[in-house]
Amino acid sequence: MSDRPTSRTRRDFLRTGAIGAGAVTLATYATAPPAAVTTVRHWDDEADVVIMGSGAAGISAAIEASGRGVAVRVYEMLALAGGSSSLSGGVCYMGGGTPLQKALGFEDSTEDMYRFMVAASGVHAPLAKLQLYCEQSLAHFDWLVANGVEYSRRFSAEKELSHEEASLYFCGNERTHPYRELARPAPRGHVPPAKNQTGGRSLMQTLLASAQRHGVHVATGVTCERLVCASDGAVLGLEVRDARGKRNIRARKGVVLAAGGFIHNPEMLKKHAPELFPCAPHWGRAGDMGIGIRMGMSIGANVLHMHHGFAVLPLYPPENVLKGVVVNVRGQRCVAEDSYYGVIGHDLLFKQGGRGYLIVDRNSDYSAPDYRLVAAGEAPTIAALEAQLGLPPESLQQTVTYYNRFAERGEDPLLGKARDYLAPLIQQPFKAYDLGVDKAFYAVHTFGGLETTVNAEVVNAGGEIIPGLYAAGRTAAGIPVSPYYASGLSIGDATFFGRRAAMHAVARRA
Amino acid sequence: MSDRPTSRTRRDFLRTGAIGAGAVTLATYATAPPAAVTTVRHWDDEADVVIMGSGAAGISAAIEASGRGVAVRVYEMLALAGGSSSLSGGVCYMGGGTPLQKALGFEDSTEDMYRFMVAASGVHAPLAKLQLYCEQSLAHFDWLVANGVEYSRRFSAEKELSHEEASLYFCGNERTHPYRELARPAPRGHVPPAKNQTGGRSLMQTLLASAQRHGVHVATGVTCERLVCASDGAVLGLEVRDARGKRNIRARKGVVLAAGGFIHNPEMLKKHAPELFPCAPHWGRAGDMGIGIRMGMSIGANVLHMHHGFAVLPLYPPENVLKGVVVNVRGQRCVAEDSYYGVIGHDLLFKQGGRGYLIVDRNSDYSAPDYRLVAAGEAPTIAALEAQLGLPPESLQQTVTYYNRFAERGEDPLLGKARDYLAPLIQQPFKAYDLGVDKAFYAVHTFGGLETTVNAEVVNAGGEIIPGLYAAGRTAAGIPVSPYYASGLSIGDATFFGRRAAMHAVARRA
Repeated sequence: MSDRPTSRTRRDFLRTGAIGAGAVTLATYATAPPAAVTTVRHWDDEADVVIMGSGAAGISAAIEASGRGVAVRVYEMLALAGGSSSLSGGVCYMGGGTPLQKALGFEDSTEDMYRFMVAASGVHAPLAKLQLYCEQSLAHFDWLVANGVEYSRRFSAEKELSHEEASLYFCGNERTHPYRELARPAPRGHVPPAKNQTGGRSLMQTLLASAQRHGVHVATGVTCERLVCASDGAVLGLEVRDARGKRNIRARKGVVLAAGGFIHNPEMLKKHAPELFPCAPHWGRAGDMGIGIRMGMSIGANVLHMHHGFAVLPLYPPENVLKGVVVNVRGQRCVAEDSYYGVIGHDLLFKQGGRGYLIVDRNSDYSAPDYRLVAAGEAPTIAALEAQLGLPPESLQQTVTYYNRFAERGEDPLLGKARDYLAPLIQQPFKAYDLGVDKAFYAVHTFGGLETTVNAEVVNAGGEIIPGLYAAGRTAAGIPVSPYYASGLSIGDATFFGRRAAMHAVARRA
Repeated sequence: MSDRPTSRTRRDFLRTGAIGAGAVTLATYATAPPAAVTTVRHWDDEADVVIMGSGAAGISAAIEASGRGVAVRVYEMLALAGGSSSLSGGVCYMGGGTPLQKALGFEDSTEDMYRFMVAASGVHAPLAKLQLYCEQSLAHFDWLVANGVEYSRRFSAEKELSHEEASLYFCGNERTHPYRELARPAPRGHVPPAKNQTGGRSLMQTLLASAQRHGVHVATGVTCERLVCASDGAVLGLEVRDARGKRNIRARKGVVLAAGGFIHNPEMLKKHAPELFPCAPHWGRAGDMGIGIRMGMSIGANVLHMHHGFAVLPLYPPENVLKGVVVNVRGQRCVAEDSYYGVIGHDLLFKQGGRGYLIVDRNSDYSAPDYRLVAAGEAPTIAALEAQLGLPPESLQQTVTYYNRFAERGEDPLLGKARDYLAPLIQQPFKAYDLGVDKAFYAVHTFGGLETTVNAEVVNAGGEIIPGLYAAGRTAAGIPVSPYYASGLSIGDATFFGRRAAMHAVARRA
C-alpha cells in the first residue's frame, strides 16, 4: 500500500553518507574560490576561446571557433577525448524537414517540431532555446554533415534503433497520446549507422577528426581548477593543472565550460537529485563530476533543473511486450506503455516511488529472457499473480479486466496507448517483471546545470550575464528536462549550444 | 486522458514571461557582485552579529545572540517586522515529550519523532538536521516558553486547528498509513492560542517583544544590498541602504541571512519551481523575493531543493468530506484522503499534473459551501458524474465500486485510509469538487535555499564553509522538503536554526 521504495541496500547507502572517496577528491578541484586577476602574475599561455571538456559540446565549440579563425585551446581531464557523448547512442534530435527526412519521404515542419518539444517539456520548457533550436535545426544538420557526419538513407520503423544500417527513426514520444494530437509526428532521430548503439562513438570520432582538421589540439589529462576573474567579475581565463604543474591560461574572448554533468559525483547527486542516486547504471564517463558546474557557481552563476535527469528504463525492444500493462504498487496503470522509455522511467522513479511492474501474458511476453528485467512472479491467473506480488486484493484483476475490455475494441480510454500495442491479456501464464529502482535497469544521467542564455552565456542568480563565461552540454541547464521525452535531445543540445557559445565568444569585444 | 494541466490563463502567463515588474526591480538589489573589502573605505556601523530579516529566523537569531551578550543589528526591508512567519499559523513542530504533551497525557519519544520525520521526508531527508532538531526539541520548547510564548493546556482532536483555545494537536501525517506503523503517532503541533489561525502573529509579537527586552532594535525599511567579503571569500559585513543612503555595516562575528524564500519573485519562481507558479495564493510577505538566497549565491553559495515548496490544498475542515475519494484525471485514487493537506496538494500538483477531483456523496459532502473549492459536477449516479467530468468511461465507477466494497468492511487496501474516514459513497446526489491548480485554493511557498550545515553556516558547491556567513528560515534549505508533511516544520526550522546561527557566530573567532 505504501509507495515508498523498498530497496534496502542502495537506500541505506544513500543515507549513511558513504561516498566514493576518489570521485570527491577529484571534484574538490573546483571548490577553491576563483582567483582574482591581480593574483595572476603572468599568463603561461593564451588563446581566444578556452574550452573545458572534449565531449560533443566542447568539440562543437572548438570546431566552430576554429572555423572562424580564432585560436582555441581544449582541455580534457581524462586520458581520452570524447566525453560522455561517446558513450551515447549518438542520436541528434533534428527536424523541420531535414534532407534525410525528405529523402526518406517524411514531412516535417519547424512548427510541428516546436509544438511537440514544448508540449513534451511540460512546465520546465526552455522556450527561447527550443525556438532557436527548432528554427535552426536544418542549418545544424548541414553543419554536422559538413563536418563529416554521414547518415544512411535508411529508415527504421522500430522504437529503439537496433537496425545497424538505419539513420532515421522515431526516437521519442511523438506518436504517443496526447502528443500525436498536438503535433504531426515525424521521425527526428538522426544517427550515424552503427552497430549495437555505438553511434556516439562514431559521432565523436567524426567530430574529433573534424576538429583536428581545423587545427584543434585536445590536451588530455589536464584538469581545469579555477576561473580567473577581473575585479568586476568578468572571466579572463583558467587555471589548469597537469603532470607539469599549474598554468594560467588567458582567454581573450571567453571560457567555455563543457565538462559534463554530475552523475559521477555521489555527494552532488545525493544532494541535488537523490531519486537518481539508487539507480543503475550511472551513465557517463568518469569526468561527469560536476566540476564545470561548481566552477561556475564559485563565481555566482545560477543553476537550474538540478533535480532533473534522464531515467531510461528500456522495456523494449521487443515492442511486443508493450501490449502488457505497467502498473504501480497499487496495481493501477500509470503511464502509457508505448511511451518513450525515458518517460516510463521518469514516471516510475519520480511519481510512483521507484516501484512498479510490467504485467504480460504468454502472447506479450519477451521471447527470450531480458537481462534488464527481473521476473517478479508467474501464475496461471491474474488473481494469483496479484497475490504473489502482494498487490491490494482485486486491484490488478480490476485493472486487467478494464484494460482487456477496451483493448478488445482497440481502445485505451485510460491512457491512450496506440492501437498497435493494444491486446487483451488472456493467455496464461501471466508474468510480472519488477520495475523497481533496486531491480530494473535504469540508465541515469543529470540534466541540471548552469543557467545560460540562448548564446550559451552563463548568468548569475539575478539573470545578469557573467562576461566571458559560457557553458554548454550537461554543464548547462539546456533543452533536456525531466521527463526526457526523446533520444537525441542531449547530444542535439550539446552540439548546438556548444556552437552558439563559440559563435558568441568569437564575436565578443572583450 | 492527458495529465497535463489545462489552465489556460495562468499557464499562458507562465509562458509569456510576463512578470511583476515591481518585484523584480526590488530583487535586483542582490544581483550586484559582492564588494571586495578593499573597496570599503570605512565602516559606518558595526556589530558582532548582523541579521538580514526579522521573521522567525532572524528574530530568534537576534534573541539568542543578544542573550549571549554580543551586539546585534537587525535589518528589515519592509516597514513592518515579523516576516512571513507572522502570516503563518504559528505552529511549531516539537516533540519527544514536551511539558505540554505530558500535561495533556500524550506519550512521545525523540526516536518516534525522528523516525516519523525521516520517513515522511523521503529521499530528501536532511538527516543530520533532523537528528539535531529532534534531540533538542525539548530544549527548544523551553526556549520558546522562556521567551514568553504561552501555550494553553488544551488539546484539539481536529486535523486542522480551528479551536481557538487549544495549543496542541496532530498537525501532520503522523496517523496516516504507512507512518502510523513506522512510528508511534503523537500530537506535535504546538501553537499559541489564537483565533482564525493567527497564531503566527501572536508568536511573532511575543518573540519581537522578547527581542526588544533583550535590547534588540529592528531597523525597518532597510534593504541589504551586498555582502562585503575579504579576498579569501570570508564575509566581513553588509552593505545596506535606506532613506538616508548607503552604509557599510561590519559584522565582527557573522552575517545571518534570514530574508525568507522567493515566492514573490516571479522570475525565480518560474525558473526554479514552475509547478508552484500557477498556484494561488502565493503565501508570504512581500519581502519573499529571494534576495538573501541570491546574495549568498553571488559569492558562490550552493543551493538545494529549489523546486520544493509547500502546496497546501485544504480539503478539511470539515473532516467528514475525507470519507469521499480524491481521484486524478484517470478516475484513479492517488493519495489517502486523510493525509495532511500539504501531502494531498503535493501529490496532485507534482504527480498528477495539477488536476484532480474530490468525489463525495450526500453523506460526505460539505455542510456549507466551501469557498476554497469549486463544484465541478453533480449527478444522481456515479456513472453520470463520471460522464459530466469527462473521465474515461467506467473509470470512476470502477474506483467507487472498489472503494465502497472495502469501505463497508472498514478497510482500504489501496491506500490505507484510517477507518474513521471510510464510508461507502451511496447516497445521491454525488458531487465532484475541482482540485485543479487553476480552480482550487493552493497556498504555496518555497523551500529551496542556501545549503547550510547544522550550525546554519552557508557552504559553497564543494561543501566548504563560507566563513562568517549564516542562513536560516526559508533563505536556507532546511527541514521542510516536498512533500510538506506537517504544519510547524517551517517555523520550527526557522526558530531552531536561527538560534543555531547565532550560537555558532557568537562562539566564532573571526
